[in-house]
Amino acid sequence: MAEFRHRFTVDYVDTDALGIVHFSNYFRYFERAELALLRSLGFDYRRLNRDMGVAIPRVEAHCRYLSPCTFSQEVEVELWVEELRDRSLRYGFRIHNRSEGKVAAEGWVTVVSIDISRFEAVRMPEEFRRALTPYLREG
Amino acid sequence: MAEFRHRFTVDYVDTDALGIVHFSNYFRYFERAELALLRSLGFDYRRLNRDMGVAIPRVEAHCRYLSPCTFSQEVEVELWVEELRDRSLRYGFRIHNRSEGKVAAEGWVTVVSIDISRFEAVRMPEEFRRALTPYLREG
Amino acid sequence: MAEFRHRFTVDYVDTDALGIVHFSNYFRYFERAELALLRSLGFDYRRLNRDMGVAIPRVEAHCRYLSPCTFSQEVEVELWVEELRDRSLRYGFRIHNRSEGKVAAEGWVTVVSIDISRFEAVRMPEEFRRALTPYLREG
Amino acid sequence: MAEFRHRFTVDYVDTDALGIVHFSNYFRYFERAELALLRSLGFDYRRLNRDMGVAIPRVEAHCRYLSPCTFSQEVEVELWVEELRDRSLRYGFRIHNRSEGKVAAEGWVTVVSIDISRFEAVRMPEEFRRALTPYLREG
Repeated sequence: MAEFRHRFTVDYVDTDALGIVHFSNYFRYFERAELALLRSLGFDYRRLNRDMGVAIPRVEAHCRYLSPCTFSQEVEVELWVEELRDRSLRYGFRIHNRSEGKVAAEGWVTVVSIDISRFEAVRMPEEFRRALTPYLREG
Repeated sequence: MAEFRHRFTVDYVDTDALGIVHFSNYFRYFERAELALLRSLGFDYRRLNRDMGVAIPRVEAHCRYLSPCTFSQEVEVELWVEELRDRSLRYGFRIHNRSEGKVAAEGWVTVVSIDISRFEAVRMPEEFRRALTPYLREG
Repeated sequence: MAEFRHRFTVDYVDTDALGIVHFSNYFRYFERAELALLRSLGFDYRRLNRDMGVAIPRVEAHCRYLSPCTFSQEVEVELWVEELRDRSLRYGFRIHNRSEGKVAAEGWVTVVSIDISRFEAVRMPEEFRRALTPYLREG
Repeated sequence: MAEFRHRFTVDYVDTDALGIVHFSNYFRYFERAELALLRSLGFDYRRLNRDMGVAIPRVEAHCRYLSPCTFSQEVEVELWVEELRDRSLRYGFRIHNRSEGKVAAEGWVTVVSIDISRFEAVRMPEEFRRALTPYLREG
């Protein structure tokens, strides 16, 4: 089983007047890690979109917020695949606040494979599924 | 039972390269409606934060994406209270794409009442709870 | 000479840890007003993009920040055209903080007309120029 | 003379429906690099804000857009100090699209030193000025 982690620093603009990262941004952090994972496998959205005619829009997203992060803190997103189906997949993620040694948030995001020209669900490209299989982590 | 709806137009910056509103932004749309509701009741975050010493950070968020929106479309957020507890409340929301006559997304967000100086859970101010009670919608 | 003003409320997510609207967001406020103006004239980006094959990407942007805004404040963007050329136009904007009766920011944004398929500068559609002419305000 | 460069990958959410990075985001990219520079010198906003009682809000910002970037491209922000005064400083920046070998944007941002409790201009802390001096690059 492979594991994927992606690390970066919290931007100032990511915080709000409460001084902490806005709750919507954890979904953006998840996606930043997702793109890094896909790039590392040779499949970024561009390749999916332009070369394979497929997009993977989100159909469901969930997050629990455990401990706030603030700007200039180092964050690490741990990312895995919770379910891998024919036309959809569910990512799991956990966001670590490395500056404080705490888990900041955890959640999951379900994406569905669509034909980009018709916006209709299609089978995920087989090589894409194969590339993600090592990241499958059972419940 | 009171109902709250808040209407606005999708900004260009809210869309991404797929041409549709980025999934993280539906949580921002929810919050835009939440602030409008709280303002209409005389309780915006400012009053909560500065006058009552309370903040209501998010502890859990969930969204299902049903139909994409794009820029310049008119959106309406329908907002209600699903649960009202001593120290927390769960909002329910549904985002209507009025330009297409479709439901774009629906979800819920749980917030917890904290003392803003100690970042510790406290009982929600009674008048705040009272103001929200008419928006409670069972299951 | 016509005048255009667009009013809205500052979102919580627009603020940063300093408690004020992040400087990048004033450009987004400008664009929100620009889209409202173009829609009011029957030309939103969609019509420009899809029907007329033209996009108007930004080539230069400038802003002076005069007085901070914070969340839940009412803001009004005053928008006009400073220059109207064959292939480009310069908008001028002033952002009023109505909650405090102050000018929050002022600036300008230059856009260039491009053929959307070739990403090359082209003459602005004549009816688009004509629609904007009443908003031209000399220095 | 010291030089500072900060490199990262364009997020999907940074693009808009035109498929390119939204013009407001180049100011966020500038700031991301600025924070990285300040951190590398031992002065992030947090230290300025909390330890030294100073904030450096933006009073003027300018950007010229030269060549668009899109998601998953590698970007490098080159950052320097153009002017260093008693109470203000002007950063210069250039954003390189490394994936295409082009300059994407260039601009400058002027910040002013304020006392964070009174929101009034104050002399910049001497050690902060000293730390930035090597990055001063004449016109």
